[in-house]
Amino acid sequence: MTLSLVIGTKRYSSWSLRPWLALKAAGLAFDEVEITLRQPDTKVEIQKYSPSGKVPLLFDDGFKVWDSLSICEYLAERFPAARLWPDHVQARAVARSVSAEMHSGFMPLRRDCPMDVLTDAPMAEINDEVRADVARIDALWRDCRDRFGGGGDFLFGRFSIADAMFAPVVTRMRTYHLPVGEVSQAYCESVMAMAAMKEWVAAAR
Amino acid sequence: MTLSLVIGTKRYSSWSLRPWLALKAAGLAFDEVEITLRQPDTKVEIQKYSPSGKVPLLFDDGFKVWDSLSICEYLAERFPAARLWPDHVQARAVARSVSAEMHSGFMPLRRDCPMDVLTDAPMAEINDEVRADVARIDALWRDCRDRFGGGGDFLFGRFSIADAMFAPVVTRMRTYHLPVGEVSQAYCESVMAMAAMKEWVAAAR
Repeated sequence: MTLSLVIGTKRYSSWSLRPWLALKAAGLAFDEVEITLRQPDTKVEIQKYSPSGKVPLLFDDGFKVWDSLSICEYLAERFPAARLWPDHVQARAVARSVSAEMHSGFMPLRRDCPMDVLTDAPMAEINDEVRADVARIDALWRDCRDRFGGGGDFLFGRFSIADAMFAPVVTRMRTYHLPVGEVSQAYCESVMAMAAMKEWVAAAR
Repeated sequence: MTLSLVIGTKRYSSWSLRPWLALKAAGLAFDEVEITLRQPDTKVEIQKYSPSGKVPLLFDDGFKVWDSLSICEYLAERFPAARLWPDHVQARAVARSVSAEMHSGFMPLRRDCPMDVLTDAPMAEINDEVRADVARIDALWRDCRDRFGGGGDFLFGRFSIADAMFAPVVTRMRTYHLPVGEVSQAYCESVMAMAAMKEWVAAAR
Protein backbone atom coordinates (compact mmCIF):
# COMPACT_ATOMS: atom_id res chain seq x y z
CA MET A 1 0.00 0.00 0.00
CA THR A 2 1.28 3.45 -0.91
CA LEU A 3 -0.50 6.58 0.18
CA SER A 4 0.49 9.94 -1.33
CA LEU A 5 -1.08 13.26 -0.44
CA VAL A 6 -0.87 16.19 -2.84
CA ILE A 7 -1.07 19.43 -0.86
CA GLY A 8 -0.51 23.16 -1.26
CA THR A 9 2.05 25.34 0.50
CA LYS A 10 1.87 24.45 4.19
CA ARG A 11 1.88 28.07 5.28
CA TYR A 12 -1.37 28.88 3.47
CA SER A 13 -3.22 25.73 2.40
CA SER A 14 -6.03 25.35 4.89
CA TRP A 15 -7.77 22.63 2.88
CA SER A 16 -4.57 20.57 2.74
CA LEU A 17 -3.99 20.66 6.48
CA ARG A 18 -7.17 18.71 7.16
CA PRO A 19 -6.49 15.30 5.56
CA TRP A 20 -2.79 15.67 6.41
CA LEU A 21 -3.75 15.87 10.10
CA ALA A 22 -6.17 12.95 9.73
CA LEU A 23 -3.40 10.82 8.17
CA LYS A 24 -1.01 11.74 10.97
CA ALA A 25 -3.65 11.12 13.64
CA ALA A 26 -4.30 7.70 12.13
CA GLY A 27 -0.57 6.96 12.37
CA LEU A 28 -0.35 6.25 8.64
CA ALA A 29 2.84 6.57 6.62
CA PHE A 30 2.41 8.62 3.45
CA ASP A 31 4.36 10.54 0.84
CA GLU A 32 3.76 14.23 0.28
CA VAL A 33 3.77 16.24 -2.91
CA GLU A 34 3.75 19.92 -1.99
CA ILE A 35 2.72 22.35 -4.72
CA THR A 36 3.70 25.98 -4.22
CA LEU A 37 0.57 28.13 -4.23
CA ARG A 38 0.32 31.67 -5.66
CA GLN A 39 2.79 31.02 -8.51
CA PRO A 40 2.18 31.54 -12.24
CA ASP A 41 2.26 27.76 -12.83
CA THR A 42 0.30 26.72 -9.72
CA LYS A 43 -2.89 25.94 -11.62
CA VAL A 44 -1.08 23.84 -14.23
CA GLU A 45 0.87 21.98 -11.55
CA ILE A 46 -2.29 21.10 -9.62
CA GLN A 47 -4.11 19.99 -12.76
CA LYS A 48 -1.36 17.44 -13.40
CA TYR A 49 -2.78 15.53 -10.45
CA SER A 50 -6.25 16.76 -9.70
CA PRO A 51 -9.48 16.36 -11.70
CA SER A 52 -11.10 19.19 -9.72
CA GLY A 53 -8.12 21.50 -10.21
CA LYS A 54 -7.79 21.77 -6.45
CA VAL A 55 -5.71 20.40 -3.60
CA PRO A 56 -5.72 18.24 -1.54
CA LEU A 57 -5.80 14.95 -3.39
CA LEU A 58 -4.96 11.47 -2.09
CA PHE A 59 -3.47 8.67 -4.14
CA ASP A 60 -4.07 5.21 -2.67
CA ASP A 61 -1.95 2.91 -4.85
CA GLY A 62 -2.73 5.22 -7.76
CA PHE A 63 -6.46 5.54 -7.07
CA LYS A 64 -7.49 9.19 -6.74
CA VAL A 65 -9.67 10.55 -3.95
CA TRP A 66 -10.09 14.32 -3.76
CA ASP A 67 -11.57 17.01 -1.52
CA SER A 68 -10.59 17.42 2.13
CA LEU A 69 -13.78 15.98 3.60
CA SER A 70 -14.07 13.11 1.14
CA ILE A 71 -10.45 12.07 1.78
CA CYS A 72 -11.16 12.05 5.52
CA GLU A 73 -14.28 9.90 4.98
CA TYR A 74 -12.22 7.54 2.82
CA LEU A 75 -9.54 7.20 5.49
CA ALA A 76 -12.18 6.57 8.16
CA GLU A 77 -13.62 3.71 6.10
CA ARG A 78 -10.32 2.27 4.92
CA PHE A 79 -8.61 2.36 8.31
CA PRO A 80 -11.38 1.72 10.86
CA ALA A 81 -8.89 0.98 13.64
CA ALA A 82 -7.91 4.66 13.56
CA ARG A 83 -11.45 5.56 14.71
CA LEU A 84 -11.41 8.87 12.85
CA TRP A 85 -15.11 9.49 13.53
CA PRO A 86 -16.67 9.25 17.01
CA ASP A 87 -18.02 5.78 17.81
CA HIS A 88 -21.52 6.73 18.92
CA VAL A 89 -24.04 7.26 16.14
CA GLN A 90 -25.29 10.62 17.46
CA ALA A 91 -21.80 11.97 18.18
CA ARG A 92 -20.76 10.89 14.70
CA ALA A 93 -23.82 12.59 13.15
CA VAL A 94 -23.04 15.88 14.89
CA ALA A 95 -19.35 15.54 14.02
CA ARG A 96 -20.36 15.21 10.38
CA SER A 97 -22.81 18.14 10.65
CA VAL A 98 -20.20 20.53 12.05
CA SER A 99 -17.58 19.25 9.59
CA ALA A 100 -19.95 19.86 6.68
CA GLU A 101 -20.96 23.26 8.09
CA MET A 102 -17.26 24.20 8.04
CA HIS A 103 -16.75 22.64 4.61
CA SER A 104 -19.36 24.77 2.87
CA GLY A 105 -19.59 27.82 5.07
CA PHE A 106 -17.95 30.62 7.03
CA MET A 107 -17.07 32.48 3.83
CA PRO A 108 -16.47 35.87 5.51
CA LEU A 109 -13.96 34.36 7.94
CA ARG A 110 -12.24 32.46 5.15
CA ARG A 111 -12.12 35.55 2.93
CA ASP A 112 -11.03 38.13 5.50
CA CYS A 113 -8.83 35.98 7.72
CA PRO A 114 -6.89 33.66 5.38
CA MET A 115 -4.82 30.94 7.00
CA ASP A 116 -1.20 31.94 7.51
CA VAL A 117 0.40 29.79 10.18
CA LEU A 118 3.55 31.94 10.35
CA THR A 119 1.94 35.31 11.02
CA ASP A 120 0.71 37.08 14.11
CA ALA A 121 -1.63 39.85 12.96
CA PRO A 122 -4.14 40.99 15.58
CA MET A 123 -7.20 42.32 13.79
CA ALA A 124 -7.89 45.91 14.85
CA GLU A 125 -11.44 46.03 13.57
CA ILE A 126 -13.49 42.90 13.14
CA ASN A 127 -16.38 43.37 10.73
CA ASP A 128 -19.87 42.12 11.54
CA GLU A 129 -19.78 39.18 9.17
CA VAL A 130 -16.53 37.82 10.59
CA ARG A 131 -17.80 38.47 14.10
CA ALA A 132 -20.93 36.42 13.37
CA ASP A 133 -18.83 33.54 11.98
CA VAL A 134 -16.56 33.59 15.04
CA ALA A 135 -19.56 33.64 17.39
CA ARG A 136 -21.15 30.67 15.61
CA ILE A 137 -17.92 28.66 15.69
CA ASP A 138 -17.40 29.52 19.36
CA ALA A 139 -20.94 28.30 20.19
CA LEU A 140 -20.51 25.21 18.03
CA TRP A 141 -17.21 24.19 19.67
CA ARG A 142 -18.68 24.73 23.14
CA ASP A 143 -21.77 22.70 22.27
CA CYS A 144 -19.74 19.78 20.90
CA ARG A 145 -17.48 19.74 23.94
CA ASP A 146 -20.42 20.03 26.37
CA ARG A 147 -22.43 17.24 24.78
CA PHE A 148 -19.74 14.90 23.49
CA GLY A 149 -16.35 16.00 24.85
CA GLY A 150 -16.43 13.70 27.86
CA GLY A 151 -13.50 15.51 29.45
CA GLY A 152 -11.20 14.86 26.47
CA ASP A 153 -9.13 17.55 24.78
CA PHE A 154 -11.01 17.64 21.48
CA LEU A 155 -14.52 18.38 20.19
CA PHE A 156 -15.67 14.79 20.62
CA GLY A 157 -13.23 13.68 23.32
CA ARG A 158 -10.40 12.08 21.40
CA PHE A 159 -9.21 13.57 18.10
CA SER A 160 -11.65 13.14 15.18
CA ILE A 161 -12.18 14.37 11.63
CA ALA A 162 -14.19 17.27 13.06
CA ASP A 163 -10.98 18.55 14.66
CA ALA A 164 -9.12 18.12 11.39
CA MET A 165 -11.81 20.14 9.60
CA PHE A 166 -11.59 22.97 12.15
CA ALA A 167 -7.79 23.00 12.60
CA PRO A 168 -7.30 25.76 9.98
CA VAL A 169 -9.86 27.88 11.84
CA VAL A 170 -7.99 27.28 15.07
CA THR A 171 -4.90 28.82 13.46
CA ARG A 172 -6.97 31.78 12.23
CA MET A 173 -8.37 32.43 15.70
CA ARG A 174 -4.80 32.72 16.94
CA THR A 175 -3.28 34.59 14.00
CA TYR A 176 -5.94 37.30 14.08
CA HIS A 177 -6.63 37.20 17.86
CA LEU A 178 -10.33 36.61 17.31
CA PRO A 179 -12.57 36.72 20.39
CA VAL A 180 -13.68 33.29 21.65
CA GLY A 181 -14.67 32.06 25.09
CA GLU A 182 -12.61 30.05 27.54
CA VAL A 183 -13.77 26.64 26.39
CA SER A 184 -12.82 27.48 22.80
CA GLN A 185 -9.50 28.98 23.86
CA ALA A 186 -8.59 25.80 25.69
CA TYR A 187 -9.66 23.81 22.66
CA CYS A 188 -7.43 25.90 20.38
CA GLU A 189 -4.51 25.23 22.71
CA SER A 190 -5.16 21.48 22.57
CA VAL A 191 -5.10 21.53 18.77
CA MET A 192 -1.95 23.66 18.57
CA ALA A 193 -0.25 21.35 21.11
CA MET A 194 -0.65 18.29 18.88
CA ALA A 195 2.70 16.94 17.67
CA ALA A 196 1.31 16.85 14.12
CA MET A 197 0.30 20.54 14.25
CA LYS A 198 3.75 21.48 15.47
CA GLU A 199 5.28 19.46 12.67
CA TRP A 200 3.08 21.22 10.07
CA VAL A 201 3.96 24.69 11.37
CA ALA A 202 7.68 23.86 11.59
CA ALA A 203 7.63 22.60 8.01
CA ALA A 204 5.90 25.81 6.92
CA ARG A 205 8.86 27.91 8.07
CA MET B 1 -39.47 6.54 14.65
CA THR B 2 -40.42 10.00 13.39
CA LEU B 3 -38.37 11.78 10.76
CA SER B 4 -39.01 15.47 10.08
CA LEU B 5 -37.17 17.54 7.52
CA VAL B 6 -37.05 21.33 7.82
CA ILE B 7 -36.62 22.83 4.36
CA GLY B 8 -36.83 26.17 2.56
CA THR B 9 -39.23 27.18 -0.22
CA LYS B 10 -39.22 24.35 -2.74
CA ARG B 11 -38.93 26.68 -5.69
CA TYR B 12 -35.57 28.07 -4.57
CA SER B 13 -34.00 25.95 -1.84
CA SER B 14 -31.31 23.95 -3.60
CA TRP B 15 -29.76 22.73 -0.35
CA SER B 16 -33.13 21.41 0.84
CA LEU B 17 -33.80 19.41 -2.30
CA ARG B 18 -30.84 17.13 -1.67
CA PRO B 19 -31.78 15.33 1.57
CA TRP B 20 -35.44 15.47 0.55
CA LEU B 21 -34.59 13.44 -2.57
CA ALA B 22 -32.43 11.05 -0.53
CA LEU B 23 -35.33 10.47 1.88
CA LYS B 24 -37.70 9.83 -1.02
CA ALA B 25 -35.21 7.56 -2.78
CA ALA B 26 -34.84 5.58 0.42
CA GLY B 27 -38.62 5.17 0.54
CA LEU B 28 -38.80 6.71 3.99
CA ALA B 29 -41.88 8.42 5.39
CA PHE B 30 -41.17 11.86 6.84
CA ASP B 31 -42.86 15.09 7.85
CA GLU B 32 -41.92 18.36 6.23
CA VAL B 33 -41.66 21.82 7.73
CA GLU B 34 -41.32 24.32 4.88
CA ILE B 35 -40.01 27.76 5.77
CA THR B 36 -40.67 30.54 3.27
CA LEU B 37 -37.37 32.02 2.14
CA ARG B 38 -36.76 35.71 1.32
CA GLN B 39 -39.19 37.01 3.96
CA PRO B 40 -38.43 39.49 6.75
CA ASP B 41 -38.82 36.75 9.38
CA THR B 42 -37.07 33.94 7.46
CA LYS B 43 -33.90 34.10 9.55
CA VAL B 44 -35.82 34.04 12.84
CA GLU B 45 -38.01 31.17 11.64
CA ILE B 46 -34.99 29.07 10.64
CA GLN B 47 -33.20 29.79 13.90
CA LYS B 48 -36.15 28.30 15.79
CA TYR B 49 -34.99 24.93 14.49
CA SER B 50 -31.45 25.19 13.29
CA PRO B 51 -28.21 25.70 15.24
CA SER B 52 -26.39 26.75 12.06
CA GLY B 53 -29.14 29.19 11.08
CA LYS B 54 -29.55 27.31 7.81
CA VAL B 55 -31.82 24.77 6.19
CA PRO B 56 -32.08 21.83 5.72
CA LEU B 57 -32.25 20.18 9.11
CA LEU B 58 -33.44 16.67 9.99
CA PHE B 59 -35.12 15.67 13.23
CA ASP B 60 -34.87 11.96 13.99
CA ASP B 61 -37.10 11.49 17.03
CA GLY B 62 -36.06 14.97 18.12
CA PHE B 63 -32.33 14.49 17.49
CA LYS B 64 -31.01 17.21 15.17
CA VAL B 65 -28.78 16.54 12.18
CA TRP B 66 -28.02 19.48 9.89
CA ASP B 67 -26.36 20.28 6.57
CA SER B 68 -27.41 18.62 3.30
CA LEU B 69 -24.40 16.32 3.00
CA SER B 70 -24.31 15.35 6.66
CA ILE B 71 -28.02 14.47 6.62
CA CYS B 72 -27.42 12.25 3.58
CA GLU B 73 -24.49 10.51 5.33
CA TYR B 74 -26.69 10.00 8.38
CA LEU B 75 -29.48 8.46 6.31
CA ALA B 76 -26.98 6.17 4.55
CA GLU B 77 -25.75 4.88 7.91
CA ARG B 78 -29.12 4.68 9.60
CA PHE B 79 -30.91 2.96 6.70
CA PRO B 80 -28.28 0.74 5.06
CA ALA B 81 -30.91 -1.20 3.12
CA ALA B 82 -31.56 1.94 1.06
CA ARG B 83 -27.97 1.70 -0.30
CA LEU B 84 -27.67 5.46 -0.63
CA TRP B 85 -23.95 5.25 -1.44
CA PRO B 86 -22.51 2.94 -4.12
CA ASP B 87 -21.50 -0.48 -2.77
CA HIS B 88 -17.96 -0.65 -4.14
CA VAL B 89 -15.32 1.15 -2.06
CA GLN B 90 -13.82 3.03 -5.03
CA ALA B 91 -17.18 4.04 -6.49
CA ARG B 92 -18.22 5.21 -3.04
CA ALA B 93 -14.99 7.22 -2.65
CA VAL B 94 -15.51 8.99 -5.97
CA ALA B 95 -19.19 9.54 -5.17
CA ARG B 96 -18.11 11.25 -1.96
CA SER B 97 -15.43 13.27 -3.77
CA VAL B 98 -17.84 14.67 -6.35
CA SER B 99 -20.50 15.25 -3.68
CA ALA B 100 -17.99 17.18 -1.57
CA GLU B 101 -16.71 19.09 -4.61
CA MET B 102 -20.32 20.21 -5.22
CA HIS B 103 -20.87 20.92 -1.52
CA SER B 104 -18.01 23.43 -1.23
CA GLY B 105 -17.57 24.65 -4.78
CA PHE B 106 -19.02 25.99 -8.00
CA MET B 107 -19.63 29.41 -6.45
CA PRO B 108 -19.98 31.28 -9.78
CA LEU B 109 -22.67 28.88 -11.00
CA ARG B 110 -24.48 29.08 -7.67
CA ARG B 111 -24.25 32.87 -7.60
CA ASP B 112 -25.17 33.63 -11.21
CA CYS B 113 -27.62 30.79 -11.87
CA PRO B 114 -29.70 30.41 -8.70
CA MET B 115 -32.05 27.46 -8.54
CA ASP B 116 -35.58 28.30 -9.64
CA VAL B 117 -37.44 25.17 -10.66
CA LEU B 118 -40.38 27.12 -12.10
CA THR B 119 -38.49 29.36 -14.53
CA ASP B 120 -37.19 28.93 -18.05
CA ALA B 121 -34.59 31.65 -18.60
CA PRO B 122 -32.06 30.87 -21.35
CA MET B 123 -28.83 32.69 -20.53
CA ALA B 124 -27.86 34.95 -23.43
CA GLU B 125 -24.27 35.47 -22.34
CA ILE B 126 -22.52 32.97 -20.14
CA ASN B 127 -19.54 34.46 -18.35
CA ASP B 128 -16.18 32.66 -18.21
CA GLU B 129 -16.48 31.62 -14.59
CA VAL B 130 -19.88 29.99 -15.07
CA ARG B 131 -18.65 28.40 -18.29
CA ALA B 132 -15.69 26.85 -16.43
CA ASP B 133 -18.01 25.49 -13.73
CA VAL B 134 -20.35 23.98 -16.32
CA ALA B 135 -17.43 22.42 -18.22
CA ARG B 136 -16.05 20.87 -15.02
CA ILE B 137 -19.46 19.46 -14.03
CA ASP B 138 -20.01 18.13 -17.55
CA ALA B 139 -16.62 16.35 -17.43
CA LEU B 140 -17.27 15.07 -13.93
CA TRP B 141 -20.69 13.60 -14.78
CA ARG B 142 -19.28 11.94 -17.90
CA ASP B 143 -16.35 10.50 -15.95
CA CYS B 144 -18.60 9.06 -13.22
CA ARG B 145 -20.93 7.50 -15.77
CA ASP B 146 -18.05 6.10 -17.84
CA ARG B 147 -16.26 4.55 -14.90
CA PHE B 148 -19.11 3.60 -12.59
CA GLY B 149 -22.44 4.03 -14.41
CA GLY B 150 -22.65 0.42 -15.58
CA GLY B 151 -25.45 1.29 -17.98
CA GLY B 152 -27.72 2.65 -15.24
CA ASP B 153 -29.48 5.99 -15.43
CA PHE B 154 -27.51 7.78 -12.73
CA LEU B 155 -23.91 8.80 -11.98
CA PHE B 156 -23.10 5.51 -10.26
CA GLY B 157 -25.69 3.30 -11.93
CA ARG B 158 -28.62 3.33 -9.54
CA PHE B 159 -29.57 6.54 -7.68
CA SER B 160 -27.11 7.62 -4.97
CA ILE B 161 -26.36 10.58 -2.73
CA ALA B 162 -24.14 11.98 -5.50
CA ASP B 163 -27.27 12.40 -7.64
CA ALA B 164 -29.06 14.07 -4.76
CA MET B 165 -26.15 16.50 -4.37
CA PHE B 166 -26.20 17.39 -8.06
CA ALA B 167 -29.99 17.51 -8.54
CA PRO B 168 -30.14 21.30 -7.98
CA VAL B 169 -27.45 21.74 -10.65
CA VAL B 170 -29.47 19.58 -13.02
CA THR B 171 -32.36 22.03 -12.65
CA ARG B 172 -29.99 24.97 -13.26
CA MET B 173 -28.63 23.40 -16.45
CA ARG B 174 -32.19 23.26 -17.74
CA THR B 175 -33.46 26.61 -16.43
CA TYR B 176 -30.57 28.54 -17.96
CA HIS B 177 -29.98 26.24 -21.00
CA LEU B 178 -26.34 25.73 -20.09
CA PRO B 179 -24.19 23.87 -22.61
CA VAL B 180 -23.44 20.25 -21.67
CA GLY B 181 -22.68 17.20 -23.80
CA GLU B 182 -24.97 14.34 -24.72
CA VAL B 183 -24.09 12.12 -21.79
CA SER B 184 -24.85 14.92 -19.36
CA GLN B 185 -28.05 15.84 -21.17
CA ALA B 186 -29.30 12.28 -20.90
CA TYR B 187 -28.33 12.28 -17.23
CA CYS B 188 -30.29 15.49 -16.61
CA GLU B 189 -33.33 13.88 -18.23
CA SER B 190 -33.03 10.84 -15.96
CA VAL B 191 -32.96 13.04 -12.88
CA MET B 192 -35.90 15.17 -14.00
CA ALA B 193 -37.88 12.00 -14.83
CA MET B 194 -37.70 10.72 -11.26
CA ALA B 195 -41.11 10.62 -9.59
CA ALA B 196 -39.65 12.44 -6.59
CA MET B 197 -38.30 15.29 -8.74
CA LYS B 198 -41.69 15.67 -10.39
CA GLU B 199 -43.31 15.75 -6.96
CA TRP B 200 -40.89 18.48 -5.78
CA VAL B 201 -41.49 20.66 -8.84
CA ALA B 202 -45.26 20.18 -8.66
CA ALA B 203 -45.23 21.19 -4.99
CA ALA B 204 -43.19 24.28 -5.87
CA ARG B 205 -45.98 25.60 -8.08
